[in-house]
Amino acid sequence: MSALLIRAAGAADRPAIWAILEPVIRAGESYALPRDMTGAEALAYWHGAAHQVFVAQTGTEILGTYYMRSNQQGGGAHVANCGFMTAPAATGRGIARAMGNHALTQARAAGFIAMQFNFVVSTNTRAIGLWQSLGFATLCRLPQAFAHPAAGLVDALVMHRVL
Amino acid sequence: MSALLIRAAGAADRPAIWAILEPVIRAGESYALPRDMTGAEALAYWHGAAHQVFVAQTGTEILGTYYMRSNQQGGGAHVANCGFMTAPAATGRGIARAMGNHALTQARAAGFIAMQFNFVVSTNTRAIGLWQSLGFATLCRLPQAFAHPAAGLVDALVMHRVL
Repeated sequence: MSALLIRAAGAADRPAIWAILEPVIRAGESYALPRDMTGAEALAYWHGAAHQVFVAQTGTEILGTYYMRSNQQGGGAHVANCGFMTAPAATGRGIARAMGNHALTQARAAGFIAMQFNFVVSTNTRAIGLWQSLGFATLCRLPQAFAHPAAGLVDALVMHRVL
Repeated sequence: MSALLIRAAGAADRPAIWAILEPVIRAGESYALPRDMTGAEALAYWHGAAHQVFVAQTGTEILGTYYMRSNQQGGGAHVANCGFMTAPAATGRGIARAMGNHALTQARAAGFIAMQFNFVVSTNTRAIGLWQSLGFATLCRLPQAFAHPAAGLVDALVMHRVL
């Protein structure tokens, strides 16, 4: 496969970003977002205020996207938070890992001192394994915090690493 | 003191709510909000989309306010989250405790199965003690997640109780 390029997203990327977000949101298995969100609502969320959005592409094909923001405002603004999505057809090709490494570098450059994920669904073992391999630790489990469409109420994890 | 009434906030309560929020936000010791937030920004935050806002009053004097919302959307919408503020001059009079008990009752009635606080500043021992006495447990500490204006980087706590 061609080299993976990760770059800041522009307005022209919105249809490609929605094409990645839609199946993940519709599945409702890994993000705490309404499964019936419209494209406009989903893109407003992904490109929310103070979010920086990136895309990962090979050639002209966009295969993943992530956002970075401060996890809290004010006295909590020195900890980063990100959300990552990979096109379902492109899983297993290292795209999420490349985006994760890119995000860690970006976050350090932006002056963040740590990165926190607030809500990693416990059944999303692929994501948990990836974050563990990138140095994230599980700070705690949020009991029965997520209603999984197949598994019912499952825990979510708070994951964290110092930068 | 007169009996404490806790009721849904209306538009006419906004000046009184801002009078409570302002000193807390300016102090920057307990909420991860910009200390220089304007009244309009602070009220937009407090009355955010899908927030229910309540006020606590004795006679005509409003002494506290809290909001309740789903902590997450979609598959995470069954866990409540709240924020509480008491007028600095009215601390120690049981207003936060009364609002906390009110919130637990409201949350149960609304069908939430748990309540989670995402970011209780570890130096805010009064709040931590109150939540513990109302049945909340600390799920984890977020290391150095809050820049306290006097104490420097301190932990924040994720607190939780089943309803």
